[in-house]
Amino acid sequence: MIHGGDVITYKDKYNGNIIDFSSNINPLGPPPGLREEMNRAYSELTLYPDIKYRELRENIAAYLSCDSDEVITGNGSTEIINNICLIFERTVVFIPCFSEYIKRPAVFGREVIKLPFSNGFEINTGKLEANLKPNDLLILGNPNNPTGLRISEQKLREIHDVIIHKNAFLLLDEAFFEFCPTDYDSVEIFKDSVNICIIRAATKFFALPGIRLGYAFAAPDFAEKYGKVESPWSVNSYANAAGRVIFKDNVYIESTKEYIKQEREYLSNMLSEIEWIKAYRSDANFILIKLLKHDEDIVFDRFIKNGIMIRKASSFEGLDKSYIRIAVKDRESNNKLIRLFKEFE
Amino acid sequence: MIHGGDVITYKDKYNGNIIDFSSNINPLGPPPGLREEMNRAYSELTLYPDIKYRELRENIAAYLSCDSDEVITGNGSTEIINNICLIFERTVVFIPCFSEYIKRPAVFGREVIKLPFSNGFEINTGKLEANLKPNDLLILGNPNNPTGLRISEQKLREIHDVIIHKNAFLLLDEAFFEFCPTDYDSVEIFKDSVNICIIRAATKFFALPGIRLGYAFAAPDFAEKYGKVESPWSVNSYANAAGRVIFKDNVYIESTKEYIKQEREYLSNMLSEIEWIKAYRSDANFILIKLLKHDEDIVFDRFIKNGIMIRKASSFEGLDKSYIRIAVKDRESNNKLIRLFKEFE
Repeated sequence: MIHGGDVITYKDKYNGNIIDFSSNINPLGPPPGLREEMNRAYSELTLYPDIKYRELRENIAAYLSCDSDEVITGNGSTEIINNICLIFERTVVFIPCFSEYIKRPAVFGREVIKLPFSNGFEINTGKLEANLKPNDLLILGNPNNPTGLRISEQKLREIHDVIIHKNAFLLLDEAFFEFCPTDYDSVEIFKDSVNICIIRAATKFFALPGIRLGYAFAAPDFAEKYGKVESPWSVNSYANAAGRVIFKDNVYIESTKEYIKQEREYLSNMLSEIEWIKAYRSDANFILIKLLKHDEDIVFDRFIKNGIMIRKASSFEGLDKSYIRIAVKDRESNNKLIRLFKEFE
Repeated sequence: MIHGGDVITYKDKYNGNIIDFSSNINPLGPPPGLREEMNRAYSELTLYPDIKYRELRENIAAYLSCDSDEVITGNGSTEIINNICLIFERTVVFIPCFSEYIKRPAVFGREVIKLPFSNGFEINTGKLEANLKPNDLLILGNPNNPTGLRISEQKLREIHDVIIHKNAFLLLDEAFFEFCPTDYDSVEIFKDSVNICIIRAATKFFALPGIRLGYAFAAPDFAEKYGKVESPWSVNSYANAAGRVIFKDNVYIESTKEYIKQEREYLSNMLSEIEWIKAYRSDANFILIKLLKHDEDIVFDRFIKNGIMIRKASSFEGLDKSYIRIAVKDRESNNKLIRLFKEFE
């Protein structure tokens, strides 16, 4: 199990509806206006999507408060990660992290340097500086998957200083940005930096993993460089059309933020009462759990037999079978999960 | 203009509806049952597409008469070309050809050997044999874009013999397969070969350039090798759902074939009467034209001012400004095109 969300494999085996706690999708579903726009977009299928994605980049730029020539689009954020890994000769990551940070550069035969986090999944900037070379690509999840931790503003500025000092490049993957506390906005902070690219995505927050819409902020020169390696028409017409509605629905956006904040607190509190696990603090819509008694296989099997799919975490380099990850979902599902944790000792 | 279909750039400039003869899409539009399936597929957007695309590969396998473990899927055929170019150290092409055969390996820093066609855009197997090395990737369009010519069965078998003899690999791009005369089916001929991958696509024949659904046939071992380099979830949920209906609509499939055959003959005959051009014989739904008097810029400008966009062909390496390419469209559009050719001398 390299990725979460593979409900299909288990649906047949366990013959029933499975609540998917293994992928981290907004439990409120997509913005309500989307269905109508999707039905309208049908008529666009007979045309190639705009090869320059002009309208889409305008829509994203308005949402990110940047210029449209600072916007990169992709077939999900994974394609953007993939193409950026191709641009750099060497990639540096901190483990555990999203597996594609390690896999994509490896596919291109590029070297990947894996540094461990310091205690509590923190980044030690001294260790970073010692290991970073000029022209390296550093990829950081913010919040990081699977740990759920957001980098503090001060730490992020320190990391960026190291990047500048070393003449390296930072790919900041903020696919879960909107679920986090709104203490700072990295796009605003680094709007004049030419050494950073900041990924955001429709997948998680707008509950659209099926549509494949990733996007990123970067300086115009880097966006142009990116354009030279990307494949044409990689964002399909439906994803292109989704950009017309999802970014403008402020009611949906704000209520999701509030909902996730409440449920994350509720779930964290409830989990802290379970004696055989340790739930880590999270800034995101998922929570990393250390199993103090059983291993991930035993817990996975027990939960899936009861209709709940959790994410085994040993496939994340740097973790072992004593970790699992769960999503923050709606109250009813969260309660079912808690009940299972309580029943199982 | 590296690719056709960029109507958006010219729509604003010329302020009106443009008939797009620059991209080669089935003029009958998508299969009629598709809209309903797309509306249904909306509910799947909150799930990740099946990471293994099991149902989609079954649907494609039934259409291609092969096994589902012989099916590769991609975000349009361009993604499949891209990933296969990554697998091989050196690529060989015959020019002129689809520009991505040259661009994709170059993006990976791979060497590209460009061989010229022999007279009449034919492949000389002696020349191929002399230039092909072990483990090379040979990419051929069948029919070739922009020439419109399908490789004869005998010639294709000869080429495949060269491939086997040299221990090379053939990527046969048959994105326009269904528009061609049905004299042979390459998937049937090469069903036991481990040195070939045959691309097909929904883009052209099913009139779905916006949906990004490409697929290919290859031996299971190669399909597995391909799986190791591809990005996860690259086909979105709508493209996945389209696979449930488009391949089964035999009435649509047969009537399109008949329609294109008639219109290609009609258009070819009409074009042969225009004195200032030479239209090449085509097996596809597009026709390459040699301009005997004006260059592509003059013809493009004159036509676009009259609401018709043709494809300049000088961006195809091996051709110059004395070539254009046009699509075979519906009778009314084809007649408008002919009228313009006649008016312009």
